[in-house]
Amino acid sequence: MRLRLKPRDTSVLSLLSDQAKLLPVGAEILAQVVGSAPAARVALAEQMRDAEHQADEATHAILRRVNETFVTPFDRDDIYELASRLDDCMDYMEEVADLIVLYRLGELPAGVVAQVGVLQRCAELTAEAMPRLSTMKNLREYWVEINSLENEGDRTHRRLISDIFDGQTPAGSDPIAIMKIKEIADNLEAAIDAFETAANAVETIVLKEA
Amino acid sequence: MRLRLKPRDTSVLSLLSDQAKLLPVGAEILAQVVGSAPAARVALAEQMRDAEHQADEATHAILRRVNETFVTPFDRDDIYELASRLDDCMDYMEEVADLIVLYRLGELPAGVVAQVGVLQRCAELTAEAMPRLSTMKNLREYWVEINSLENEGDRTHRRLISDIFDGQTPAGSDPIAIMKIKEIADNLEAAIDAFETAANAVETIVLKEA
Amino acid sequence: MRLRLKPRDTSVLSLLSDQAKLLPVGAEILAQVVGSAPAARVALAEQMRDAEHQADEATHAILRRVNETFVTPFDRDDIYELASRLDDCMDYMEEVADLIVLYRLGELPAGVVAQVGVLQRCAELTAEAMPRLSTMKNLREYWVEINSLENEGDRTHRRLISDIFDGQTPAGSDPIAIMKIKEIADNLEAAIDAFETAANAVETIVLKEA
Repeated sequence: MRLRLKPRDTSVLSLLSDQAKLLPVGAEILAQVVGSAPAARVALAEQMRDAEHQADEATHAILRRVNETFVTPFDRDDIYELASRLDDCMDYMEEVADLIVLYRLGELPAGVVAQVGVLQRCAELTAEAMPRLSTMKNLREYWVEINSLENEGDRTHRRLISDIFDGQTPAGSDPIAIMKIKEIADNLEAAIDAFETAANAVETIVLKEA
Repeated sequence: MRLRLKPRDTSVLSLLSDQAKLLPVGAEILAQVVGSAPAARVALAEQMRDAEHQADEATHAILRRVNETFVTPFDRDDIYELASRLDDCMDYMEEVADLIVLYRLGELPAGVVAQVGVLQRCAELTAEAMPRLSTMKNLREYWVEINSLENEGDRTHRRLISDIFDGQTPAGSDPIAIMKIKEIADNLEAAIDAFETAANAVETIVLKEA
Repeated sequence: MRLRLKPRDTSVLSLLSDQAKLLPVGAEILAQVVGSAPAARVALAEQMRDAEHQADEATHAILRRVNETFVTPFDRDDIYELASRLDDCMDYMEEVADLIVLYRLGELPAGVVAQVGVLQRCAELTAEAMPRLSTMKNLREYWVEINSLENEGDRTHRRLISDIFDGQTPAGSDPIAIMKIKEIADNLEAAIDAFETAANAVETIVLKEA
């Protein structure tokens, strides 16, 4: 292994901001997938795959940079954790867009639209918060709001699942249609949870520095 | 960021004990939910939400205390991990109680009662073990018993799922009823796994100190 | 706690290699379960349980050795993480074998056979890679290939789920049969993900040493 000069490098933070900027893009495409007619969804899911691919590359750029840098702004493991959790957020959103196309779903229930609305707000808050890691200021409000959105998402999800099983959605009482829409709802819930896990990673970083 | 005197503080351990004491309370409420008639479940699920809320506050008190303390009794990350995993145990139990009400389930199969029995024993063992972190003595028996309970829970879960699919439960052969009861069984299994993950976190702490 | 001389000990690496060698054994048994007639599966699932039990013991041997050793070749937490993730790979494979028997499934769809093929390649690559941790050479190709297999597995899984819901598998359009086969497909996907998580743990170790 060759020796390498490892300079102190805060540009890891700008890479994290770049990565996080892709999240509202992905959330917006997902909202379009949900709101579109089935025929228009194929092209949108393709856009989503591109966004997810860009996010993957942004994640790997961060992991490489952390490795090349001797003094990182925070604990190396905490940066790995945060970058990986931001990557999860995009992965879940991409999976939902793909499943909606694969399952050839028609109209989606209002609860799904509400879940995607929560995701869009999570993505905006996360993208706005990451640049504040450079000063470590005003981050508490970010994770408090994400936790509150996660609670809202959780309530939305439980109500939706109850409606699905009660035949109160476009899936009606067809078991196969119910399984499909439940899978969508569960993956959206997992996406919202991923935003909370990323916010927890930020909280850990901030508390350690306090 | 203001400077702050950070004293060595073992009271993190008493906060962990306080948090863990809520787990048998939650497990007992869950057992009552499972054993009650549907009409009585609504009020019990409300009690469960309160217990989960208290557990949330206990978790945050630990994370804040760890942060205010310069010399923690163990590795800071290990305390974060343990507190977060104990929090997961309560979250899963609360979710099950809520789903039983939301799905308007009637009589529950014996396998579900057995899973909740495993959870009650896990919760008792965990609450009894946490105070022993101050001396680090007699903890091995705790994680060995939890691992053995997790194995028992796993066998119970697999048999239950097989019975559910075979129409051998109150859900009969109605696909929607089967999906609901399977969701309950899977979340109970996740709750039991969460207790094992918490026990693994304790094992990690103890092995590092050995 | 008694004092103990903790020698530098690279034999942790040979224990990791021993643990990883069990993975292709498990993957091969799983392939046989999938390819066999139902009557032959019971004995094979029993073999699988034995392999999983051996893997458990190998994992615990690693955790004990890490603890007895003062200077481990890598960060202690990273070895714990890698050993635990390798253990997960076997656990998921064992669960699939057991579920196939419990659910009394007949012929399995081609997509399941394809998923198990991906698992076999993951297991082989992982077993071959672990001994290279002693020199830290030629490991990049391992995690790059695992990531690529995980992508292949993900595509296979999504196509399979879509086929299952479309009635294009031996499960036909029977909701209960569909739920069972979907559970198998989802657990196989989780097994493949577990191999990727283990490869990420190796990547973390290698990048830290670079």
